[in-house]
This record gives sequence, structure tokens and C-alpha cells, in this order.
Amino acid sequence: MLKTNEFIERLNKLDFKDMYNNDFFLTWEKSRDELEAVFTVADALRDFRENNVSTKIFDSGLGISLFRDNSTRTRFSFASACNLLGLEVQDLDEGKSQVAHGETVRETANMVSFMADVIGIRDDMYIGKGNAYMHEFMSAVQEGHKDGILDHVPTLVNLQCDIDHPTQAMADMLHVIHEFGGVENLKGKKIAMTWAYSPSYGKPLSVPQGIVGLFTRMGMDVVLAHPEGYDIMGEVEEVAKKNAAESGGSFTKTNSMEEAFKDADIVYPKSWAPFAAMEKRTELYGNGDMDGVNQLEKELLAQNAQHKDWACTEEMMKLTKDGKALYMHCLPADITGVSCKEGEVDASVFDRYRIPLYKEASFKPYIIAAMILLAKCENPQETLKALADASKVRKMD
Amino acid sequence: MLKTNEFIERLNKLDFKDMYNNDFFLTWEKSRDELEAVFTVADALRDFRENNVSTKIFDSGLGISLFRDNSTRTRFSFASACNLLGLEVQDLDEGKSQVAHGETVRETANMVSFMADVIGIRDDMYIGKGNAYMHEFMSAVQEGHKDGILDHVPTLVNLQCDIDHPTQAMADMLHVIHEFGGVENLKGKKIAMTWAYSPSYGKPLSVPQGIVGLFTRMGMDVVLAHPEGYDIMGEVEEVAKKNAAESGGSFTKTNSMEEAFKDADIVYPKSWAPFAAMEKRTELYGNGDMDGVNQLEKELLAQNAQHKDWACTEEMMKLTKDGKALYMHCLPADITGVSCKEGEVDASVFDRYRIPLYKEASFKPYIIAAMILLAKCENPQETLKALADASKVRKMD
Amino acid sequence: MLKTNEFIERLNKLDFKDMYNNDFFLTWEKSRDELEAVFTVADALRDFRENNVSTKIFDSGLGISLFRDNSTRTRFSFASACNLLGLEVQDLDEGKSQVAHGETVRETANMVSFMADVIGIRDDMYIGKGNAYMHEFMSAVQEGHKDGILDHVPTLVNLQCDIDHPTQAMADMLHVIHEFGGVENLKGKKIAMTWAYSPSYGKPLSVPQGIVGLFTRMGMDVVLAHPEGYDIMGEVEEVAKKNAAESGGSFTKTNSMEEAFKDADIVYPKSWAPFAAMEKRTELYGNGDMDGVNQLEKELLAQNAQHKDWACTEEMMKLTKDGKALYMHCLPADITGVSCKEGEVDASVFDRYRIPLYKEASFKPYIIAAMILLAKCENPQETLKALADASKVRKMD
Repeated sequence: MLKTNEFIERLNKLDFKDMYNNDFFLTWEKSRDELEAVFTVADALRDFRENNVSTKIFDSGLGISLFRDNSTRTRFSFASACNLLGLEVQDLDEGKSQVAHGETVRETANMVSFMADVIGIRDDMYIGKGNAYMHEFMSAVQEGHKDGILDHVPTLVNLQCDIDHPTQAMADMLHVIHEFGGVENLKGKKIAMTWAYSPSYGKPLSVPQGIVGLFTRMGMDVVLAHPEGYDIMGEVEEVAKKNAAESGGSFTKTNSMEEAFKDADIVYPKSWAPFAAMEKRTELYGNGDMDGVNQLEKELLAQNAQHKDWACTEEMMKLTKDGKALYMHCLPADITGVSCKEGEVDASVFDRYRIPLYKEASFKPYIIAAMILLAKCENPQETLKALADASKVRKMD
Repeated sequence: MLKTNEFIERLNKLDFKDMYNNDFFLTWEKSRDELEAVFTVADALRDFRENNVSTKIFDSGLGISLFRDNSTRTRFSFASACNLLGLEVQDLDEGKSQVAHGETVRETANMVSFMADVIGIRDDMYIGKGNAYMHEFMSAVQEGHKDGILDHVPTLVNLQCDIDHPTQAMADMLHVIHEFGGVENLKGKKIAMTWAYSPSYGKPLSVPQGIVGLFTRMGMDVVLAHPEGYDIMGEVEEVAKKNAAESGGSFTKTNSMEEAFKDADIVYPKSWAPFAAMEKRTELYGNGDMDGVNQLEKELLAQNAQHKDWACTEEMMKLTKDGKALYMHCLPADITGVSCKEGEVDASVFDRYRIPLYKEASFKPYIIAAMILLAKCENPQETLKALADASKVRKMD
Repeated sequence: MLKTNEFIERLNKLDFKDMYNNDFFLTWEKSRDELEAVFTVADALRDFRENNVSTKIFDSGLGISLFRDNSTRTRFSFASACNLLGLEVQDLDEGKSQVAHGETVRETANMVSFMADVIGIRDDMYIGKGNAYMHEFMSAVQEGHKDGILDHVPTLVNLQCDIDHPTQAMADMLHVIHEFGGVENLKGKKIAMTWAYSPSYGKPLSVPQGIVGLFTRMGMDVVLAHPEGYDIMGEVEEVAKKNAAESGGSFTKTNSMEEAFKDADIVYPKSWAPFAAMEKRTELYGNGDMDGVNQLEKELLAQNAQHKDWACTEEMMKLTKDGKALYMHCLPADITGVSCKEGEVDASVFDRYRIPLYKEASFKPYIIAAMILLAKCENPQETLKALADASKVRKMD
């Protein structure tokens, strides 16, 4: 039994008209109503899918993906979202293309967009580059549309940049909303976004930044914990502070994992690289200084190794609210004794939370599809109603 | 003129209800009725296609392919089958993904399956690994469904493992059924599944194993011939013996190619590696012993070179029934004087059988599509009827 | 408001019945009527797309792409065209496939074509090879159809060969037709197809060859200009001469860029390699003589460097008709001071023509789609009418 009417009623109370023909760069550039619209449409699409009802709003059209870093789950999430709506994914593989040979972003952006409805970009490796690249790309297609080159403007879905990982953070949040029985129950809940040890180094900052940038919107008590020197981007901390002030929650920092875990309702222990080191690495790569890069890597691994005690152990979990905080991770996690000798989390903790962790990941395709639908449909309520009225079967049985 | 009713009547006489929501690992795990259901649905789908009638039973959905070995024809067969039914292929490319970086099979399986209706896996390189991997993968998604992570369970199509190559063997069999005018005409026919010399080594055992494992089901006289030391998996020989006993056919072994070809109705000469050597190679790879691997390769090539007389020459063909046995091969063949100096088959023999060989290959997309349809539709007869009633045009003309 | 009737009336005046079930190799193998049919259907498809009307003439089916050279825009154009018509692209990646391991073209062609409606091939690297390969491929599938292996014959779209680049030249021409307000206005217009300096060497000859081979069909004054020694294929020059004689235009050659630009209505300055050098390179590669290839590369770069004055500068542009000739390029261009130190065109010239250049490129997907539609539909006028009558929405809004 479809619950479409319920979702439409929720949407009727929200103001999200600016999402039409717009892009999704950072969660904190969106209003609370706009974020709730994404969650609501995501739930509505999932409801259709689970009831075997087609959600193809496109008869044809391309979703262009550009991954500048390896990816399994985000790649499949994007492909799933596009397929769910009727778009075919066309990968812009910089290896196979002539992109590397001196083409400007402006040109590439227009050349691949003649039939593109969506552009999904993952560019998270270099500080100051990923988000800027996305903006450059989208400016180019907007200009191309204004100049009569493109008959329409594709919408951007930021699949991870140097600043934010909005599809991850939004999927994480939708998971939390479902776990806690509604967004209204999140006020006053404590989440510990903490650094954790991993034998690799240089993991992107966009996950912790995305989490503190989004979870502070919901009136939650957000604690960011890391060893000294592992700071995230200063500007994102400012965003988190401002968010907390506005939402009636709090944003605090600590260098103690224990303090962060204490009475937490949710813990999100995960490795990342110090922002300052990533800035330095970006500069070294820019200068082609590979000796410098190797030297930095050694230093960072040595620095990490001093903090092997930052692990989500059973002991640490006992500190949380009733010892039962919701454990979260964007996956894959570095599991002690499983995927590495010493890592972010004890195997027993990870195993106990495997089902909610996988459910957490299951929201991402729907979040991406919702972002696309809200950018492409002028009246999403009518679109949802039309899908429900048609109730076209997805799979003949 | 569609012959759908005829196919439906055939299906009405068969019991294949266990195929619904099930997987296809090995042909000998399926009943005779189930195999015939696959052949019948494959023929029905081909009939639709040749009459320009759409067979899209999916409005959207993904078919995930995972190829752990190079492939042209199986890759295209899977893509064709998915497209025929309305699914979009999404390739799980272990190079592009993070699979290599310590992810567990359980996690990957769930992460790629949120919108997957089918999983096609080819993993034939290491003894004891390929089929086991597929089972591990499918256990993970079944568990994921039970745990509420996946709203449905994708079906597995084994695109070749270390034990069987069911889509190949089934396509081969459907070809034989058509060539001989019906499955009822196969009883008592002799097929020679024989080793043949090739300048390469280490070709998978799954083709000969798949052939003896399937053709013994049909009351045929199946002869497996190879030089001493080129044994296939013992457990598959046991399966073949049991099959032959049940079907009223026979399964015999010989070290003489001549004996096998004598009066054969069908010959299938093809190179493969000795099972024992492949076991050893798997172990060497497992230990990272590359010197051992290279040494083994040398030994195997030297061993092969002693059996250059195992070739499907014109002389050999004369030994077969009226000199006109049906020559079969999974392709590509090593053709003497064409693709190599000395190989599996004479160029003149290959050329004479080119048309039936290519027809043989043409059944694979339909076999795969039939396996999917039977796993996904609770009442395939009704599905076929609905497709015929709708008679939606595939290509506007 | 759809203009379909207008396009249908135009088609009614043309004879293009031989395009049905045929291929597109070279523009000069097609009649003027056939070329105009392609332009007309391309415009009709664009009209549908811009009015949000579906042009899916296929319910399912594959478009096979085989790129033997890197490509962004042609790859995306082919993918866009296939998607526009309802086909899914399946890439024949010679790296991933067993193509490299001794398979014959005949076999591969049949193996990938069981469900293929279109084959798009780019093979432009070696003189005497690309076009020949395409013919070999298509002969194989035609034979396969005759032999009952394939239930239909896919159509070839030449995505660039050693002789012609028809989708590029046709897109360029459609752009010119739109810029000049109709094909009837092209008579007597002067186009300068000129060589230009680039720091790279060995760029394909198919673009200049395609341009002189097509533009001479329209009664234009076509000037081919290049430094001594940079001749294109002799047989294409003969084609251009014959075309010019028949169409009432002219085809002349010069070694002076100034002379070519003088009073030109259109200029197309672009680097290419001397035909003789490419013949030699093909031979060297054929012999595996890599030292020879490297030596040739050095010589060609030195030879190029003597002609840095062959650049489309502001000064040169002043020589053209009113200083305002239409500047064209297939992209990406080597822009002086932008993508290289010294290149084909001044940055200020390129920037002034950026919008028309990108529009020029935007026609390629529609040209490809039109080629496919004309090969696949027996009565294209009825197909267009059916699409207009149905007016199925492409994107729900």
C-alpha cells in the first residue's frame, strides 16, 4: 500500500521551490525545508520501489558520472539512482577521453552535456580543488545554456568534494531519522564524530566535515573529537558553530575520544588526514614534488601510529548512552583483526552493528534520486501523484 | 507469427516452481524439468525477438556483472540478455572500485545489490574458489534480504566458475536440440568431449566439465577423452556417471582421441589444463610463489607439446558417424595455421562448421535471459502470455 | 510547437530509400538527397528533443561502440544518439575482451551482434586500415545474417576512419547550413580548409579529407591550403574535384594560408600529418620498427616547427570576407598561450567564436541518430509522424 499521499502532505508544508533547476553542492547551502524535501522524496521513492511501482520520470537521457577517485558504493548509488529515474549512466573516464590532453573544463562540460540531465562528480583528493572544479563545470553549462548551446541545464550532484560529502551525510541522516523515529526526536541527542586510527593515511576530510556540517542543523549536540593536529577545515567548523546556534544544538571540540563517547547517542569513529597536511600535500603535488609527497606520507603514518588508542573498542562503547550508542560509518571500515591488524573499530563492535550499517548505506541511492527529482521537476508533489496514479509495474511477476 | 502458446503448453507439463527466487549455479543441481523450462523460455524469447516483440519484463533495474577474467562473448551475452529484459548492466570493475582494498565479500555484495535484480559472475581461474565465491556472495545478499537491508534478492547467473560453465553448456545443448530436431532424438547419440592440443596452457576445465555434466542427462553416450594426466575434477566425473545411470545413457573415459571420435554424432575437441596442475597453480598463487608458477607453466607447455597429435583434423573427422559429426566449440578456437601454428582444429574443418558454430553461440543470450526470467517471474507462462498479448513493438519500422 | 510536418514535407521530396538497411561509411558514397535526408531527420529529432518529446524508436537493443583511439566528444555523441533512440551502448573494449587473443574480425563481429542494432567504429590511426576494417566487419555481419546466424543486420556508423570522418563533416555542414540560413545559400561561398601548426604531430587526416569531400558537394568554393609536403590522400582530392565539377563549385589547392583566407566566408584551420608520413608510419608500425617510428616522429616535429606561421591569428582573420569569416574546428583546438605555447589559433579568435564552435559540436549526436533512424526505419516520414502523434513526454515535469 503506497504512502504517497502522506509524503505529498509533508512536502506541501515545505518551501523548496529554489531547488528546481538548481544544483546540490553543500548541505549548508540548503535550507532546512530543502533538506527535509530531499528526505521526504527519498522515502517516497523507496516506498514506490518497495511496492514494485516504476519511478521513471525520464523516458531517455544521460546521467554523466566523473569519478576522480576509486569508488564502489557511490558509483553504484549514482548508477542505481539514475536507473531508478530512467537515465542511463555514461561515465566520463578521463583515461579513455581526451580530457587529459589540454581541454578546458568549459569545453568538456559543454561537450558531454548535450543530452545530460545530471552530472555526478567525485573530486575529493586535493584541498581547494574539488568543489571549485564542480563550480567551474556548472558555470560552464549554465553559460552554455544561456548561449543557446545546450537546450537545458543538467543538475549537479556533488558525489564528494574536498569540503562536503552531501550524499553520504544526507544518507547517514536519513538513517538516523529512521532509527530515532523522526527528525523531531533528534533534538538534544549527542553524536560523537571522532577520529580513529587506521593504518592508511590521507583519508578524505569530507566525511567528518559533512557530518558536523549537517548534524548541527538538527538541534543535536555534536562533538568533534580528534588527536591534536588533526583539525578539519576551519571554515566548516565555523559553519557547524553557526548551525548549532541557529538550531538550538551545540558544537564542541575535544582531544579526548573518551569525552566524546561519554553518553553519546551516536558515535561515528573514522580516520581522516589533518587538514594542514592535506593542504601541504596538494601543494607538493602541484609542484610535482614526489619526494616531498613520499616524505609527507612517512611523517603522517608515523604521526598516526602515535594514536592507535583512538579505536572504537568494546570498552569505548561502554562509555556511550546505556552502552548502546548507534555506531555509524561510511564504509569500508578498517576493522581490527579483519581488514587490518589494528584499525578503527573492534570486530565485535562492527559485527554487532552490521545490519544498521548496511541499512545506512542503502539510503544513498534514494537520496541521490531525490536530489535529481527535486532539481528536475517543477512540482514534485504532482510528479509523485502522477507516479502513484499510473502505478506502472516495475517488474512483471 | 508468434508460437507463444506452443511454448506455454510445453511449460505447463514441467515442474519448475523451485526456480522462482532461486539461483543458477550448476546444471546438475537442476531437475530435468527445470533445464527444459530454461530451453523452452529461451526459445520463446527468441521467437518474440525475431518477431520484433518486446520482452521487457523490467521497467528499470540493474544487472550487475563481475568478470574476474577477460571475456567478449559471455560479457556481450549477459549484456544482451539484460537489455532484452529491460535491465541495465552495471559492471563491478574491481580495478575501479575499492573491492581490492580489504572489503569483505559480504559487504560488497550488499552494497552493489540495493537495486540489482541479477548478478552475473565469471570466476573460473582458481580451483576451489570461483563457485565458492558465488555462494558466499549469494549467502550475503540472502542474509541482507532477511535482515531488511535489501528489499529483494537478486538472482545469480553463474557465468563460468571453476566447476561448471552452465550458460555455455546450456547454449551448446539448445543448439544440439535444434540440430537434432528435439531433445527426444538425443537418446543414444554419441558425443566425444575430447582434449585437443593448444599452444596456450591453463584453459579452464569448466567447459569439458559442464559438457559431461549436462550431456549425460539426456541419455547420450558421452565419451571423455584426453591424454594421460589431463583428468578433470573427480567429483564431476562422479556426477556424469550418476547422470548417465539415471538417464539411460553412458559415460566412458578413454586416452584415445580416435576411440572417442569413432562413430561419434558430435565432437567437442578443446584444450584444457590438467585438474591436478590447476590445483597446484592455485596453491602456488595462494603462496605468492611466482617462481613456482613460472616453473609450472614451463612444465605444462612441455607436457602439452607431447600431444600435438590431439587435433581435430580432416582425418579424425572421417572416423565420425558418416564422417559428418557435428563439430562444436565454445570459441574462440585455436585453429591450425590461422590463429596459431598448430592448434585444436584444422582450418578446413573449422571453416566447414563456421555457421553452426556461430549459431551455437547465438543461444547464450537467450539462455541467460531465460534463467533470469524463470528466477524472477512466479508464473512464467502468464508472463509470456502477457508479452504476447501486449505484442509491444521492439523497433518501430 | 513541433515542426514535424515541415520536416516530413522536405523528406517527401527526397529519394533516400537505399539508406534503409544500409551503412554509413563515406559521405561521397551517398547521394545529395541522402545527405539532405540526414540533415532533415537530424533537425526533426532536435525539434522533438527541444520540445520534450520522446524519440525512442527502440524499446530495447544495443549500440556497440568500438573505439580504437581515445575520444570524448565522439564517444558521448554516439552514446547520446543511442540513448535518444532507445538503444543501450555496450562498449567493445579490446583490453577487456579476448579480441586481442587471435580472434578473427569475422568471429568477433558476429559474436557481439546478436542483439546489436548499430555498430559505431572509430579506427583512424593507420592508413589503409580503418575503413577496410569497417568493411570487413560489416561483410561479416551481412554474411552472418544471410547464414541465419543473426536475425537482423546492425547498421554501421563510421565514427572516423583513415579516409573520412562523416559524423564530424556532416555535423559541421549542418552547423554551416544553420549559420547561413539554408543549404541553398552555400553556393559560391568560399571555405578555406587549411593546415595549421600544432606542437603535436600525427593528427588524423580524416577531418580535412571529410571537409573537402563533403563541402564540394554544395557548390562551394573549397580551398585546401597547406605547406608543401602536407598533402592529403590523393584519392580524396580526386573525389573533391569530381564533386566540385558536378555541384558547380570549385576545388583548388594552395601552399599559401593567406591566399586561402582571402575573402573566405568560412575558415577551418587545423593541424594534420602529411599523408606520405602516415603511410610510412603505418608501415613502420606494421614491421614493429619502433626506432623508425621514433625517428619519424622527430622528423615530423622538426618539419612542423618550420611552419609556425601557419596560425589563425587576428591578422589572418582580417583577410577574410569583411574580416568576419565563420571560424570552425572539430575541437579540441591547440590554442596559442592556452593549451600550448604556439598553436593553431589565437586565443582571442577562439574566444570570439566559442559559442558557434560549441554549437557546431552540438549537431553530432543528432547527425548520428539520424543516420541510425534512416538505416533502421523503412518509412522515416511515418516514423516521425508516429512520434509526433504520440508526443510522449521525455521528462515528466
